[in-house]
Amino acid sequence: MTHTTEDARQRAANVRLAVFDVDGVLTDGSLLFTEAGETMKRFHTLDGHGMKMLMQSGIEVAIISGRSSAAVSQRMKELAITHVFQGIHDKRSTYEALLASLGLAHEAVAAIGDDVVDLPILSRSGFAAAVPAAPAFVRERAHLVTQAAGGAGAAREFCDFILDAQGKLAALQQRYLA
Amino acid sequence: MTHTTEDARQRAANVRLAVFDVDGVLTDGSLLFTEAGETMKRFHTLDGHGMKMLMQSGIEVAIISGRSSAAVSQRMKELAITHVFQGIHDKRSTYEALLASLGLAHEAVAAIGDDVVDLPILSRSGFAAAVPAAPAFVRERAHLVTQAAGGAGAAREFCDFILDAQGKLAALQQRYLA
Amino acid sequence: MTHTTEDARQRAANVRLAVFDVDGVLTDGSLLFTEAGETMKRFHTLDGHGMKMLMQSGIEVAIISGRSSAAVSQRMKELAITHVFQGIHDKRSTYEALLASLGLAHEAVAAIGDDVVDLPILSRSGFAAAVPAAPAFVRERAHLVTQAAGGAGAAREFCDFILDAQGKLAALQQRYLA
Amino acid sequence: MTHTTEDARQRAANVRLAVFDVDGVLTDGSLLFTEAGETMKRFHTLDGHGMKMLMQSGIEVAIISGRSSAAVSQRMKELAITHVFQGIHDKRSTYEALLASLGLAHEAVAAIGDDVVDLPILSRSGFAAAVPAAPAFVRERAHLVTQAAGGAGAAREFCDFILDAQGKLAALQQRYLA
Repeated sequence: MTHTTEDARQRAANVRLAVFDVDGVLTDGSLLFTEAGETMKRFHTLDGHGMKMLMQSGIEVAIISGRSSAAVSQRMKELAITHVFQGIHDKRSTYEALLASLGLAHEAVAAIGDDVVDLPILSRSGFAAAVPAAPAFVRERAHLVTQAAGGAGAAREFCDFILDAQGKLAALQQRYLA
Repeated sequence: MTHTTEDARQRAANVRLAVFDVDGVLTDGSLLFTEAGETMKRFHTLDGHGMKMLMQSGIEVAIISGRSSAAVSQRMKELAITHVFQGIHDKRSTYEALLASLGLAHEAVAAIGDDVVDLPILSRSGFAAAVPAAPAFVRERAHLVTQAAGGAGAAREFCDFILDAQGKLAALQQRYLA
Repeated sequence: MTHTTEDARQRAANVRLAVFDVDGVLTDGSLLFTEAGETMKRFHTLDGHGMKMLMQSGIEVAIISGRSSAAVSQRMKELAITHVFQGIHDKRSTYEALLASLGLAHEAVAAIGDDVVDLPILSRSGFAAAVPAAPAFVRERAHLVTQAAGGAGAAREFCDFILDAQGKLAALQQRYLA
Repeated sequence: MTHTTEDARQRAANVRLAVFDVDGVLTDGSLLFTEAGETMKRFHTLDGHGMKMLMQSGIEVAIISGRSSAAVSQRMKELAITHVFQGIHDKRSTYEALLASLGLAHEAVAAIGDDVVDLPILSRSGFAAAVPAAPAFVRERAHLVTQAAGGAGAAREFCDFILDAQGKLAALQQRYLA
């Protein structure tokens, strides 16, 4: 399956909800362990601002993660993201329940992931993105493969792409020049 | 010694046990020290899923590490890996004892390492892999040098290569599209 | 807008104050979270020496950050930087108040940032720099885009560029050969 | 000044003492701060083995660092390195006192650094190396610029280069194939 940028833009233009995987997408995939287990997550400053701009533009933001971490809860709280689903082994069920609760169709959803466990979401959402480190099997099924790596701006690139496709990015940027 | 991908695939097709070094393979080689000594290890989310897929496919998974760390124990416990050997200075003895206990021949073993201390295992196992940062002396003796770096998907690439050579990867991936 | 290196050098020649963003500039943008929130910042040794050389050359150094962190306070204290503004949501006001207190015009200020929130400062300062990971909208408005990444020498490159434009770098380097 | 690899090899052949800077050489230059100050150092597994091989070959190993950290002390203790000098602002004095105590001439010393503060040592030692991230002024004065980055194998490359120039590397590697 090959997707043109124009196809990806048209898909992104309809998005009302953006779903993010955490490890490998909002982080570089590192799992930082001490003797107490996983104790730290490394997020990126550019991504946080992208997620904020989505919400300021009326697009819902959610994370659906297979792991569970208090560090993730802290970061999501800081960003005022309320659709936070952690420890999710059946990502499809959570994804479909979220759509039902928000009254949205698959076409209104953008999703970004880094591994095969994200495919139940990526294969259903209207606009699917993958990070460059994702296995080929995942990348080939995405409408957009980001240039930036996970944890280093991939999520921001995904946010900016959606906002640009909806004609909202320029105004969000211009106001910083006022 | 030059190895073709086809030679590597044939070697990987027979594997019943996969042996991983830790530092530089399951991590990027970083040794994170505080005043209390080494306190943290950085694993990668892609690698964990690869090791799980090996086990789901009936392939045994072991780690043999020269260092010893409670952080490694925690991560291996989470992945349900039971063949965990740490603080091993004579890797050959541990490797040979493991093969004897599992009743496996060298041809049934895949191993991945990053340095000369892994050569006693790499030079005996049927299928030997090295990370790109390994010294040339090690890389030249491996049947596969991964494209991904240690701690950034090298182990996953090694797992996927084995599963693909055994004709098991496609089915494992396809089920996420169901 | 395109800027030549010569234009950038002329702008840097007049600088009396250098303003640094923190996350993404003095760090690689990583936000390291534990269950207690953000607990760690990763600075770079090359950058510290660059900031010291600016101060030794009579150029004022300031940081203006949107976030607030005790780790930043510690590092700035070590470097003897006194103009430390954290938790600043209106960067323009802080920037203008600082200029007023120092009696400096915009032309006497160099600034480096990584995101649109830095534009109110970058668009006013006489010499504006951006890190390579900054969004295109930001990079296009900078007089210099560093080759080194944020947290990996970008700030040092910015410092050295200013010192070189002012004809002060060679002497600072030569004294280490005495 | 341009140096050929052959010139560098001849210089390395005479080395009896190897002097390492810490931040940016044995680490990637990261300074990891918490509210308690600098609390963690990130070393690399490949480097440790290189330093051990130097010592096994009768070459003295020393570190001379401008900073001071209990994490460095821990790592050096683990590697059984006894010439550990931290918090050194006048690197030349420490370097010259060390040479005097060991009865060595400058020609018998190899040194590796990442910044101008290392030049008083680099400019005197018989064989001088720099990491690729070092400022051009430093790299131009080194006999070898490593291909690997600091904290990612640069020190190991430096060690292997010395051992190879002295005709000792092959035997050290071959014994792992026994």
